[in-house]
Amino acid sequence: MASIFTKIINREIPAQIVAEDENYIAFLDIMPLVKGHVLVVPKQEVDYIFDLEPEVLAGLHVFSQKVAKAMDKTIKCTRIGVAVIGLEVPHVHVHLVPLRTMDDINFSRPKLKLTPEELAETAELIKSGF
Amino acid sequence: MASIFTKIINREIPAQIVAEDENYIAFLDIMPLVKGHVLVVPKQEVDYIFDLEPEVLAGLHVFSQKVAKAMDKTIKCTRIGVAVIGLEVPHVHVHLVPLRTMDDINFSRPKLKLTPEELAETAELIKSGF
Repeated sequence: MASIFTKIINREIPAQIVAEDENYIAFLDIMPLVKGHVLVVPKQEVDYIFDLEPEVLAGLHVFSQKVAKAMDKTIKCTRIGVAVIGLEVPHVHVHLVPLRTMDDINFSRPKLKLTPEELAETAELIKSGF
Repeated sequence: MASIFTKIINREIPAQIVAEDENYIAFLDIMPLVKGHVLVVPKQEVDYIFDLEPEVLAGLHVFSQKVAKAMDKTIKCTRIGVAVIGLEVPHVHVHLVPLRTMDDINFSRPKLKLTPEELAETAELIKSGF
């Protein structure tokens, strides 16, 4: 069965997409740790990041860098943190999280609840940074 | 002034090094979240990961993948998690953290205190996985 992320890639379920190319896509996490929390996903549906071919892994991080640079320009934060955990959705995803404190990237704490309007606004803001 | 990681690279301070090549080095975190927590560092002293040249960033993650594969073979865990935060030491470092639960990669919780003997043993274990 297609992962929830493959369904986003195929436009079967909606998402606030901020960047996309042939091999990768970036969209807002709908359960963000902080405002501007983005997920970067390879279009190839692989569960575990270290099972990606090295060139696909390298490309994923170089694509993530472009997204992070746009986030740095547009979202108030000290820097963009990176996390790959993968204990939930079985499709590789890099979390890009705008950080001010260490606790901003603590996945054990409660997630924010943003309205669709707030998510749409945040996506527009990040897109303006490319 | 050289960062603590540059001092490790230059063998001015000791560390349990598990892998090294011309451009990157991997050693045990001495304040680990869990047993087998590794830091992967580019030899070039840059503060912020997204300021690395794309090819250096790509190489860092491909090198990290080799280390993670050795960790997967030798350390009991579900998978290896990845985090880059960078609010403390101003020299890029990728955390590779053996995960069983989400909370294993919570940087807000207390760190483990391992003896030098336990660290040495863990390093030997990981090195045997290459």
